[in-house]
Amino acid sequence: MSLKTPLRFGLPKGSLEQSTFELLARAGFHVQASSRGYKPYINDPELEARLVRPQEMSRYVAQGFLDFGITGKDWVQESGHKVEVLCDLAYSKATALPARWVVAVPENSEIKGVRDLQGKRIATELVETTRRYLAAHSVTAEIEFSWGATEMKVPELVDAIVDLTETGSSLRANKLRIVETIIESYPQLIVNPAVFADPDKRKKLENLKLLLVGALNARDKVGLKMNVPKKVLEKLSLQLPALRNPTVSPLADPEWAAVEIIIDEAVVRDLIPRLKELGAEGIIEYPLNKVVY
Amino acid sequence: MSLKTPLRFGLPKGSLEQSTFELLARAGFHVQASSRGYKPYINDPELEARLVRPQEMSRYVAQGFLDFGITGKDWVQESGHKVEVLCDLAYSKATALPARWVVAVPENSEIKGVRDLQGKRIATELVETTRRYLAAHSVTAEIEFSWGATEMKVPELVDAIVDLTETGSSLRANKLRIVETIIESYPQLIVNPAVFADPDKRKKLENLKLLLVGALNARDKVGLKMNVPKKVLEKLSLQLPALRNPTVSPLADPEWAAVEIIIDEAVVRDLIPRLKELGAEGIIEYPLNKVVY
Amino acid sequence: MSLKTPLRFGLPKGSLEQSTFELLARAGFHVQASSRGYKPYINDPELEARLVRPQEMSRYVAQGFLDFGITGKDWVQESGHKVEVLCDLAYSKATALPARWVVAVPENSEIKGVRDLQGKRIATELVETTRRYLAAHSVTAEIEFSWGATEMKVPELVDAIVDLTETGSSLRANKLRIVETIIESYPQLIVNPAVFADPDKRKKLENLKLLLVGALNARDKVGLKMNVPKKVLEKLSLQLPALRNPTVSPLADPEWAAVEIIIDEAVVRDLIPRLKELGAEGIIEYPLNKVVY
Amino acid sequence: MSLKTPLRFGLPKGSLEQSTFELLARAGFHVQASSRGYKPYINDPELEARLVRPQEMSRYVAQGFLDFGITGKDWVQESGHKVEVLCDLAYSKATALPARWVVAVPENSEIKGVRDLQGKRIATELVETTRRYLAAHSVTAEIEFSWGATEMKVPELVDAIVDLTETGSSLRANKLRIVETIIESYPQLIVNPAVFADPDKRKKLENLKLLLVGALNARDKVGLKMNVPKKVLEKLSLQLPALRNPTVSPLADPEWAAVEIIIDEAVVRDLIPRLKELGAEGIIEYPLNKVVY
Amino acid sequence: MSLKTPLRFGLPKGSLEQSTFELLARAGFHVQASSRGYKPYINDPELEARLVRPQEMSRYVAQGFLDFGITGKDWVQESGHKVEVLCDLAYSKATALPARWVVAVPENSEIKGVRDLQGKRIATELVETTRRYLAAHSVTAEIEFSWGATEMKVPELVDAIVDLTETGSSLRANKLRIVETIIESYPQLIVNPAVFADPDKRKKLENLKLLLVGALNARDKVGLKMNVPKKVLEKLSLQLPALRNPTVSPLADPEWAAVEIIIDEAVVRDLIPRLKELGAEGIIEYPLNKVVY
Amino acid sequence: MSLKTPLRFGLPKGSLEQSTFELLARAGFHVQASSRGYKPYINDPELEARLVRPQEMSRYVAQGFLDFGITGKDWVQESGHKVEVLCDLAYSKATALPARWVVAVPENSEIKGVRDLQGKRIATELVETTRRYLAAHSVTAEIEFSWGATEMKVPELVDAIVDLTETGSSLRANKLRIVETIIESYPQLIVNPAVFADPDKRKKLENLKLLLVGALNARDKVGLKMNVPKKVLEKLSLQLPALRNPTVSPLADPEWAAVEIIIDEAVVRDLIPRLKELGAEGIIEYPLNKVVY
Repeated sequence: MSLKTPLRFGLPKGSLEQSTFELLARAGFHVQASSRGYKPYINDPELEARLVRPQEMSRYVAQGFLDFGITGKDWVQESGHKVEVLCDLAYSKATALPARWVVAVPENSEIKGVRDLQGKRIATELVETTRRYLAAHSVTAEIEFSWGATEMKVPELVDAIVDLTETGSSLRANKLRIVETIIESYPQLIVNPAVFADPDKRKKLENLKLLLVGALNARDKVGLKMNVPKKVLEKLSLQLPALRNPTVSPLADPEWAAVEIIIDEAVVRDLIPRLKELGAEGIIEYPLNKVVY
Repeated sequence: MSLKTPLRFGLPKGSLEQSTFELLARAGFHVQASSRGYKPYINDPELEARLVRPQEMSRYVAQGFLDFGITGKDWVQESGHKVEVLCDLAYSKATALPARWVVAVPENSEIKGVRDLQGKRIATELVETTRRYLAAHSVTAEIEFSWGATEMKVPELVDAIVDLTETGSSLRANKLRIVETIIESYPQLIVNPAVFADPDKRKKLENLKLLLVGALNARDKVGLKMNVPKKVLEKLSLQLPALRNPTVSPLADPEWAAVEIIIDEAVVRDLIPRLKELGAEGIIEYPLNKVVY
Repeated sequence: MSLKTPLRFGLPKGSLEQSTFELLARAGFHVQASSRGYKPYINDPELEARLVRPQEMSRYVAQGFLDFGITGKDWVQESGHKVEVLCDLAYSKATALPARWVVAVPENSEIKGVRDLQGKRIATELVETTRRYLAAHSVTAEIEFSWGATEMKVPELVDAIVDLTETGSSLRANKLRIVETIIESYPQLIVNPAVFADPDKRKKLENLKLLLVGALNARDKVGLKMNVPKKVLEKLSLQLPALRNPTVSPLADPEWAAVEIIIDEAVVRDLIPRLKELGAEGIIEYPLNKVVY
Repeated sequence: MSLKTPLRFGLPKGSLEQSTFELLARAGFHVQASSRGYKPYINDPELEARLVRPQEMSRYVAQGFLDFGITGKDWVQESGHKVEVLCDLAYSKATALPARWVVAVPENSEIKGVRDLQGKRIATELVETTRRYLAAHSVTAEIEFSWGATEMKVPELVDAIVDLTETGSSLRANKLRIVETIIESYPQLIVNPAVFADPDKRKKLENLKLLLVGALNARDKVGLKMNVPKKVLEKLSLQLPALRNPTVSPLADPEWAAVEIIIDEAVVRDLIPRLKELGAEGIIEYPLNKVVY
Repeated sequence: MSLKTPLRFGLPKGSLEQSTFELLARAGFHVQASSRGYKPYINDPELEARLVRPQEMSRYVAQGFLDFGITGKDWVQESGHKVEVLCDLAYSKATALPARWVVAVPENSEIKGVRDLQGKRIATELVETTRRYLAAHSVTAEIEFSWGATEMKVPELVDAIVDLTETGSSLRANKLRIVETIIESYPQLIVNPAVFADPDKRKKLENLKLLLVGALNARDKVGLKMNVPKKVLEKLSLQLPALRNPTVSPLADPEWAAVEIIIDEAVVRDLIPRLKELGAEGIIEYPLNKVVY
Repeated sequence: MSLKTPLRFGLPKGSLEQSTFELLARAGFHVQASSRGYKPYINDPELEARLVRPQEMSRYVAQGFLDFGITGKDWVQESGHKVEVLCDLAYSKATALPARWVVAVPENSEIKGVRDLQGKRIATELVETTRRYLAAHSVTAEIEFSWGATEMKVPELVDAIVDLTETGSSLRANKLRIVETIIESYPQLIVNPAVFADPDKRKKLENLKLLLVGALNARDKVGLKMNVPKKVLEKLSLQLPALRNPTVSPLADPEWAAVEIIIDEAVVRDLIPRLKELGAEGIIEYPLNKVVY
C-alpha cells in the first residue's frame, strides 16, 4: 500500500536548510540539492521535495500548494495561516539555550520592560507577532518592518528592536540589552488539514514523524556499556536514577554482568565519574542514529 | 563656510553597495567599511555615512533620521514616502539594457498581457508597485509578498511573478517569458524636503550632485586625441557630428593640428575606423575621472 | 610476513578523490594530502600512494608504473588497457540512482533512439566507448572529443552528446532529453596482472579488498537493537524477512529478549514503524564502520 | 556540590582550535564561537572559556589570569612558566607520526649533526628551547626569532632553521634535510598550581581529564562484534592477544557465542582477515565516543 | 550598413577568459557572463558571443559553427584545422617572458637535448605538436596524452614532459629542468575562411582587429607630458630616440614648451631620470585606453 | 652601464604586500608571485625580489643579506638595526588618517594618560618601542609581548594595550579608549649603508626612489583640463591658489584658452564647483600614473 501521488514536502531554504537535510538523512531520507536548487532530489518515491523560504512555508501548506513542510514556529505564528502542527523538531539549537525573539534596547536606554515601549518606535522582521504581544500588554507603539541588520538600527533609527537570539552574544557585542522575550522558536512539522484528514497520507506522515523524532532523540542521546560486579548492580540503579532501566546481560565471569543503557548525552559527564567510583569497568560510550521508545 | 553639523548620508547596503562606493570614490569621497559595517568612514567632515537597506532608505530619509541617501527608484516608489529626488544616477547598469521589473510567466503559459492576469496569483517583492500597476489597468489579482527566489515559484506556487531583470537571461534559463515591464529602475539621490529647503545644506547637496554626475558622465566617456592634417579638419567635423566641438591646438608642423575631444565611449568603436580613413594619425584614447559641462 | 617493497597504489585525483579518501579511512587506511599533492602519505608501510587522473589510471596500472589503483569503470573500459578488476566499489553514488553515460539531445530533437544518430555529430569525453556502442548498433556518426562543458554544445555545435549523469537534473536544466544509456559506471579496484599473480602481493590485495568491501557494506547498513516480548519473537521473524538472522540474547526479565540485527539502512524507514506495531520497545539504531560477512 | 565561581578555561586559538573544539564536544563540552571570538560559549556553568594564543597560554595560567588551559607542550616548555601538567592529550596528530621541532638544513649543506651548528645562524620561532638544546650539546650559535615562513630562509638568510613538522613533506618540498629532532610536541592540559591545590577545583579538573582522556581513547579505538563457534573460542584468544578480554555472550544457537571487544583501530586491518580465517562470522565494527578503563 | 545576421564570436573559456573579457572591454566591447555561462551577453548587436574551450575553438571556427574566435596559437597549431589568422594578440603574458611549451626533465636526468628523447616516454597535453617537433628532429618516442598535473609525472611515470610555462618557476619547484622550447604561444584572432571572404563581414572583422590592437597597444604604452626649456628641446630629441616624434605645444611662457609623447611603459623607468637631468619639469605619466597608429 | 650583480630587494610579506606590488607596478616594476612565494619574479634584471616579514626586514638589510627593502617605520624603529632610510612611502593609508600605534584602555578605565600606566600590565607586539616611550616619560610598567588579538586582552589579562589603528573603529567596537599615540607609521625604503655608499648602486636606488615617489604622488593627484574665457584667466589664478601654475594653451576661438593643471585630488571636490561659478567650461578630470616634479 503506497500513495498514488507523492506528497509535496516543503523544506526550509536558508539557515535551517543544512540542519534539516542532516536530520532527514539520519531519519533515512537523503536529499540531494539539484543544480537549480528549488526541486532537490529525495530518495523516497512517495515524496517530492520543494525548497521554500521559512517565512512562506505555512502559506503554501495552508493553501495546499505543498502538502506538508518543516519551518520555524515563529513564522507559523507570524503568518497566522491555518495548518496542523504535527510535532516540534527542536534540532536547530546550536546551544542548550532556546532560540527566541526578544525586545532589545541600547544598554543605557530607559526602557526596562514592555510597558516602557508605549509610544516608541520598534523595528523587527516579526511585525504581526510583535503587534499581538504589545496588544496583549495594552501597549501601543510604532512597529516597522525591518529588512535586515536590525541590531544596527538602535538607537539612531528606532528606540527598540525585536530580534532573534540564542546566547545573546551578538546583541551584547552591539551594546544592546534584552528587555523581554516575545516567543521561543524551533522547527515544526506542519501539515495541510485536508491532507492530514486522508487516512493513507496521515499514516505516511505519522511514520515520517516517528522516524524524525527517533533521529532527533538520537542527537541528544548516547549508548553506554560497561561491566559491573553483580553485587553492586542494585546499588548502582538505586543511586543513579538515569540507570533505572538498563539492559543487563550475563557475562562469562558469573560475578560480573554487562550493563547497557541509552541516556542523555548531557548526563554522561557527571555519570561516568560516578560509575567509575562505584566499581564499573570498561565503560564505553557509542553514538546512535535513532532512538524510538 | 561649512556646515555646523554633518549631514547624515544613507548608502545602500547590498547589491548596490560596491558600485556606490566606487562612484563616490571617483567623485572624490572615499568610504571605508568599518568593522561593524553600519557606520563606514567617509573622508568629508561635513558628511556622516550610514549603511541602510535600499528598501528602507526612503522611509528614514522621509522621517529625517537620515538627511539624504542613495537608493533605487523602485524602492522609492514602492515605499511611497515623501522625499525630494535630486537626480538620477544610472551607474548600476551592467549592460546597456535598463534594469526593470517585469511580469514573467512560464514559457507555455496562456498569459500574454496584463489583462490576462485577472484573477491570477502573483508573487513579487514589489507588492505596492505591482498593485498600482494592475489597478491602472483595471485588473484584480492576488498579489503575495515573496521573500526571495521568486523565479522558482512559477508555475507550481503562483501563476506569474514580478521580478527584476536586465538581460532576461536568468528568466529564460528558468523557462520564463517576459509579458510586461512595470517599472525601470536606477539609483537616485533622494533628500529630506526640510533639509533641501535649508540654503547651506542645499548648496552642499548641489555640489555633491555636481561631482557625482561629473563622475558618472566620465564612466561612459573617454578622451580622444589625434593629429589631423589641417586641410581635412573641416571635413572631419562636418562628417562626424561627434567631433563638432573639439579642442584644436597648433602643432610644431604647421600642416597639422592636434585635435582633442571628449566623447561617448559607445561611439568610439565606430569612430576610430572612420578617423583613420579620413587621415587622422596617432589616435589615442584615455580614461576620465570626471566630466563637468 | 610483510612485503619487501611497498605496492604502488593509484588514487583517483578529482571528483572521486574525497570519497575515496573517506572509504579508505573507514577501511583503516588514512591518507594525508602532501603539500605537493601527488604523493600523499598513507599510514601503511606496505603501500605507497600516488594521485593520478582517473582517465590515466588503467594505463599506468597496465604498464606496471602503478601496482594497483582505484578508478571508474568507464575509464577502464574507455582506455582498453589490460588490467584485472578485483572488485566493484559502488561508493560514489550521491543518490540511489547509478551514475551513467547517456546519449542526450535537445528536448525538441527528432532523435528518439540510437538508430537516429546515423550521420549525426556527437560530442563526448568518452570517444572510444561511444564508438563501440554505435558500432554494436551498426550506426555511423561523427564523434568528436569534448574538452568539457559538453552539455552546452547542443544544438548549436553538435546534434547530440554523450555525458555523465545521475539524476539527470543538470541535463533537464539545459533542456536536454536522455535517449539511451551507454554504460553505467562506479569505482573499481584494478590490479596489474603480474602483480596479482604474485601470491604475497595477491594476499595483501585480497585483505585490502576485504576491508574496503567491509567498509562499503557498512555505508548502507546500520545496527538495530530492540527489546521484544518472547512470545512475539517468532511472529516477528516470520513477518519481517529482514529479521531472519538476528542475534537474540536473554534479558533480566525472562519474558523479554534483546534482539540485534544488521540491516540495510534503506529498509529501516519501513521496518521501524512495523516493529513498533508488533510490540518491540526501546528500538535503537546505531552506525557501523565495517560489516564483514 | 558545584563550584561557586566558574573556572576560567584557556582554549588554544589557531591551528589547534578546531580539533580542540571537537575533542571537547566528544567529551561532552560543546563550545560555540561567539561573534567576537575571544569568549566562546561553553555549555557548562562551572566553566568560562577564553580563546588564547598557544604561545601565551602558560603565561596566563601561571599568572592566574586563567585557571587552566590546553596548549602545546612546545610552548609550555618554551615559555618556562610554572604550571602543573595534568595530562598529555595527543589528539593533534594528522598522521601516526609525532609532531616535532627539527633542525633542518639545505639538502646539500655540510651540516650533518648538532655539533656542526657551531658558529652558524639559525632562525626559529622556538628560540629558548633551541638555545637550551644547543647549550646541552655545548654548541654556540646565533639564534634569531623568526616571524614565520621560516623554511624559506635557508640558505640565503640563515644556515639552518628549527621548524615544526610531522611527515617532513613540506621540508622536503623546500629541498631541506632534517638533521636533528629537538622536541616532540602534543597538546597538554595545564593548570595553575594554586588552583590544583584546591580540592573542589581539583575534583572538577580530574573529572574533566577523565572525560577528555575517555574521548581521546575512543578516537583510536573501535568496537568489534562477531559470532564465533564455541569450539574455536579458546583458540581465538590464544592466537590473538588483542582478543584476550572479550565480552562473551550466549546466543540462541548453543554452538555459537557472541564476542565483543574494544580494540585499537590500527589493529583491525590485520585482525579482521585473521578472524575470518579462524571461523568468525558476521563481523561488524562500530565507532565509539568514549572509552574509560 | 550593418550585418544582417550577427557574427558568432568564440571566446576562450578558462585561463584566458578573464583577460580576454578585459581586452574586449578596453576595445569597447563589454561582455557579461550569463547565469548559464555559455552564451554571455555582448553589447554589439552585430556579434553573438559563445564561450568555448581554447582546445576546441579552431575546430568550430573551421567547421563554420563559429564565424571567428580568440584562442591560443598552440591549440590552433595542435588541432591543424584550416582557419585564417587575422592577428596575434599578445595580451596573456603575466611577465615580459613569452608563454611557451617546453620539454622538461628531472634535474638529474641524462637527457640534455631533443636527440636524447629517442625511445623515451613523454607525457603532454599537446600530443600532435610534440609529435611533429620530434619528427622534424628525426626522433621517435612514445608520446602519451596527459589529462593534467603533467609535471608530477616525471620521473616515475614518464621520462620527460612537454608542458606550458612562462617563468619556469613551477617547473623548478618540481625539480625539473627545461631542455628545449617547442613552441611559443599567445592568443590569436582566427576566422573562418569563407567568412573572411565576405566583404561586409571582413570589414567588420578588420575594424574589430583595429580596436583590439589599439587596446593592446595601450596596455604597454603610456602618455608622458612635460614642460621643457625651448633651448634644450633639440638636445632632448637627439639624445632620446624614444622622443623622436613628440607633440610640441607653445606655453604661456615663451621660453618653455609643452612636450607630449606616447611611449612604451617599459622605457619610462630609464627615461624619466634622464629627462629630469636634461631639465624637464612637471613630468606626468597618464594611462591610455587605446593607441591607433 | 648596468649593475654587475642584481640588488636583492626585500618586499614586505603580509598586509603591505598587495599595496606594495601595486605601487611598484605603477612605478614600472611588475612583480609576479611565484608558486613558492618567497622569490617573486620582478621584471628588472638589476633587481632580485625576496618576500620577507616586515618585522624582519631591517635585520636582514642591516646584516647585508638584503641590499634594500620596503617595510614599516614602526618595525625599523622597533628592531633598532642600523639602516639608511632613503624615503618615506606613505601609500598604505586606507584613509586620510595616519596609521599609528596607540595606548588603549577599557572605556571605563581610570587610566587617562601615560603617567597612569605606572605599575600596570601592558600587552603589545611593539615591546621595545613601548619600553622606550615609557622610559622617556619616566614610567615603569610590565610590558609583555602579544602574539596577536591584542585588543581582546583588556581588561581581563592586562590593563592596557599598545596596538595599531587608523580610524580607531575597531578599538571602539571593542569598547576601548585611546589614551596616547606612541608612533605614527608608514612604509619606508631602507638601504644597507655599505650598499648606499657604492655610487652605481646608489644611482640605481635614487632612480628607483624617483619613480616610486612619482607613482606615489600620482595616487593623490589628478589632471584637470578646462576651457576658460581669457578675460577671467587672471581672476581664476588669483582666487584659486591651487591654479597658480597652470599650463595655458591657445584655442581655435581666440576668446578662450585651454587650461591644464595637476592638483591634489582632495582639493577637486571644492575646486570644481568654484571653477564652474567662475565661468570655466568642459572641465574634465583624468587619472595619472606618475608625477615627477
